[in-house]
Amino acid sequence: MTVHLSRKYGFFAAHRLHAPGLSDEANRALYGKCNNPNGHGHNYEVEVTVAGKVDPVTGRSIDLNLLDALCEQQILAPFRYRNLNKEVAEFLTGNPTTENLATVVDDRLRAVWNEWFSAAGPKLEKIRIWETERNICQVEGQGRTQHES
Amino acid sequence: MTVHLSRKYGFFAAHRLHAPGLSDEANRALYGKCNNPNGHGHNYEVEVTVAGKVDPVTGRSIDLNLLDALCEQQILAPFRYRNLNKEVAEFLTGNPTTENLATVVDDRLRAVWNEWFSAAGPKLEKIRIWETERNICQVEGQGRTQHES
Amino acid sequence: MTVHLSRKYGFFAAHRLHAPGLSDEANRALYGKCNNPNGHGHNYEVEVTVAGKVDPVTGRSIDLNLLDALCEQQILAPFRYRNLNKEVAEFLTGNPTTENLATVVDDRLRAVWNEWFSAAGPKLEKIRIWETERNICQVEGQGRTQHES
Amino acid sequence: MTVHLSRKYGFFAAHRLHAPGLSDEANRALYGKCNNPNGHGHNYEVEVTVAGKVDPVTGRSIDLNLLDALCEQQILAPFRYRNLNKEVAEFLTGNPTTENLATVVDDRLRAVWNEWFSAAGPKLEKIRIWETERNICQVEGQGRTQHES
Amino acid sequence: MTVHLSRKYGFFAAHRLHAPGLSDEANRALYGKCNNPNGHGHNYEVEVTVAGKVDPVTGRSIDLNLLDALCEQQILAPFRYRNLNKEVAEFLTGNPTTENLATVVDDRLRAVWNEWFSAAGPKLEKIRIWETERNICQVEGQGRTQHES
Amino acid sequence: MTVHLSRKYGFFAAHRLHAPGLSDEANRALYGKCNNPNGHGHNYEVEVTVAGKVDPVTGRSIDLNLLDALCEQQILAPFRYRNLNKEVAEFLTGNPTTENLATVVDDRLRAVWNEWFSAAGPKLEKIRIWETERNICQVEGQGRTQHES
Repeated sequence: MTVHLSRKYGFFAAHRLHAPGLSDEANRALYGKCNNPNGHGHNYEVEVTVAGKVDPVTGRSIDLNLLDALCEQQILAPFRYRNLNKEVAEFLTGNPTTENLATVVDDRLRAVWNEWFSAAGPKLEKIRIWETERNICQVEGQGRTQHES
Repeated sequence: MTVHLSRKYGFFAAHRLHAPGLSDEANRALYGKCNNPNGHGHNYEVEVTVAGKVDPVTGRSIDLNLLDALCEQQILAPFRYRNLNKEVAEFLTGNPTTENLATVVDDRLRAVWNEWFSAAGPKLEKIRIWETERNICQVEGQGRTQHES
Repeated sequence: MTVHLSRKYGFFAAHRLHAPGLSDEANRALYGKCNNPNGHGHNYEVEVTVAGKVDPVTGRSIDLNLLDALCEQQILAPFRYRNLNKEVAEFLTGNPTTENLATVVDDRLRAVWNEWFSAAGPKLEKIRIWETERNICQVEGQGRTQHES
Repeated sequence: MTVHLSRKYGFFAAHRLHAPGLSDEANRALYGKCNNPNGHGHNYEVEVTVAGKVDPVTGRSIDLNLLDALCEQQILAPFRYRNLNKEVAEFLTGNPTTENLATVVDDRLRAVWNEWFSAAGPKLEKIRIWETERNICQVEGQGRTQHES
Repeated sequence: MTVHLSRKYGFFAAHRLHAPGLSDEANRALYGKCNNPNGHGHNYEVEVTVAGKVDPVTGRSIDLNLLDALCEQQILAPFRYRNLNKEVAEFLTGNPTTENLATVVDDRLRAVWNEWFSAAGPKLEKIRIWETERNICQVEGQGRTQHES
Repeated sequence: MTVHLSRKYGFFAAHRLHAPGLSDEANRALYGKCNNPNGHGHNYEVEVTVAGKVDPVTGRSIDLNLLDALCEQQILAPFRYRNLNKEVAEFLTGNPTTENLATVVDDRLRAVWNEWFSAAGPKLEKIRIWETERNICQVEGQGRTQHES
């Protein structure tokens, strides 16, 4: 039986919403206070869900030490206490909306997933990000399949 | 890639569980204290989830100002600080169980969705309501399809 | 050494804010939507804090079974799933603001405290009520002393 | 229309992670402090989600009194204030990881589901367990179908 | 009887910890990642507690519309979606630690309190700020008395 | 001005309530399921509050790295993933009620406080422990004064 194991991590970061392809006026109209040039910040929460079979010996569907280390390397260390717009490669010319942030987290984990887990092992199933307790985005990685590229 | 964007809203309201088609005795047996004729109330939480493509210019899957305005008009303004049984049309002769409340919220948003968003735009995916942190109902709107009626 | 033991209880109830001594117009101006004649409701949380010495035999500052039974009798049974304005004696001609509700809870517990606990036993120290997570009132019972009246 | 009704329950229990098929050294390496022979514990949360049609008379998709009684009998009474490794049959020679615990909860409810609910009635859809707010497992019971065995 | 009424507000902001009187090296040693020059951010929560008598007519210890308007003017509008170091006067050459932020909030409210509430009215009692759910600071304004300066 | 800085830490542990000075029957009557010989467990939360002056150079009332290290050494490392009754010295023949646990935490921090902080530095003000979100104990250390023994 497949189980779905989720780990929830937190990090604090600053961001600013600004679409490079729009005028300053259009940006202000679209994002309001979130377009403030000096940025603001959040206590972000990221939930990583993996689908896997339960190993009959260990009783686990994934090696949690590995998952934690992978997330630390790919997401938490580069994002924690950072200004996303100024210090995270994908947002230097991008726009850290909740949607884009969820996609970047998903991409960063999928990009190296096969180096960390075997083809028969756990699959990355979905990413859920809380920017605030009232603003949430989930991606399920349909666009790119693990063990395929 | 499709993303799933959720917004969570809250409102305070009173309600009473009472099935018009049952005897008073049967109502008391079925709903217990929730059948109290004078009603009681809750701090309701409503999570609205939409599925959409991320716009490459804005980095967003939906115009959040529009979604907030739609929910304010259809759900929050008519429900906030109200007695659901006495002031919300669907419950004047109905029964505001968590299931029915979730269905009404879903219906109210779907009824006007096409007036607010284009056919190529975001889709209303599901409604999740917390009556309390321990009593929750989710509907996914299979009964009525957007852009079909 | 004195310790401060707190128990947190919850109940769901309806209420309406309306000052009997004011005109309808003044009530609407003062309480806004909370003055809606049909009422609304909340998931109330009540924290009862007692100060006491730790009994060296039991390791406890108060008999929690007694405290739970006292709160059930005086507060939870009469308030749970009720319309405070219509079913709680103090509010039939009163006004269930957070302040008045906290005071009523405090009064109801103090009124019978001496029948439940000995003079050398735990003291009722304070009541804290959350109407919502953002609206809170605390009373510390300075007005009426236990074991004095 | 099918709705998804969730009830969330809590219980406090002790457990120890230890794989009977591994050496003591391998256990320590795999589970770290969770392998401590004397055990530790958690405030577990269990969310039970059922899928069902809303009864037009009662406005409910499931009899909540029945669901609560079933969960009390099968899960809460046997697990509450227990040492899972020493007092729950499935873990006497097993390993109470979050995955195994979710599977056991799912099995225990499915094993008797047909005795409590009719074939046309609500279906057990998924179990979600929070060991902590950051460690969560969900099972959806694909392995065994209700009303089939 | 005096009651203690608390209102909790939230805002999102960026900040950077940096002591102007210390070398860059000392700053890095002292604040670690929080000294990152580009800043990071938080979902701040601010609880404002006032002490007052309950008005027998209104059942309230303070006019909540006034308190909300005061906090909006003095704290929320100037801090919301802002970079504290770059856009809040007190931190342009200061250091937005949790302690300093609590003090600034307290100062800003006390500075104009007498213009909003009468001398016989509610007193500002304490400010409590959550930078995260695990890092909290409370000030009780002993340094400056209302209705005295 | 004195500020009150709080840090909140969490640990998972098992315990059993049992008063050595009472009969088995009396223990069962007093503690109910909490007297289960095999123990159960909790996700404990501990809030440590210190009172201090804000250093004008650092903007801090206490060196948080020191406070974290002190709590790790005295509380978290010895309690985390432990069975309190079997592995924590004070409870080998004691009784880990919430009251006693709060007192032990307070004692352990006060016992070495002067080795970590100067006499002019921050004072340990109070300890608040959540055994569950509904069962809480606070001690304020009146029994033993810092910098006095």
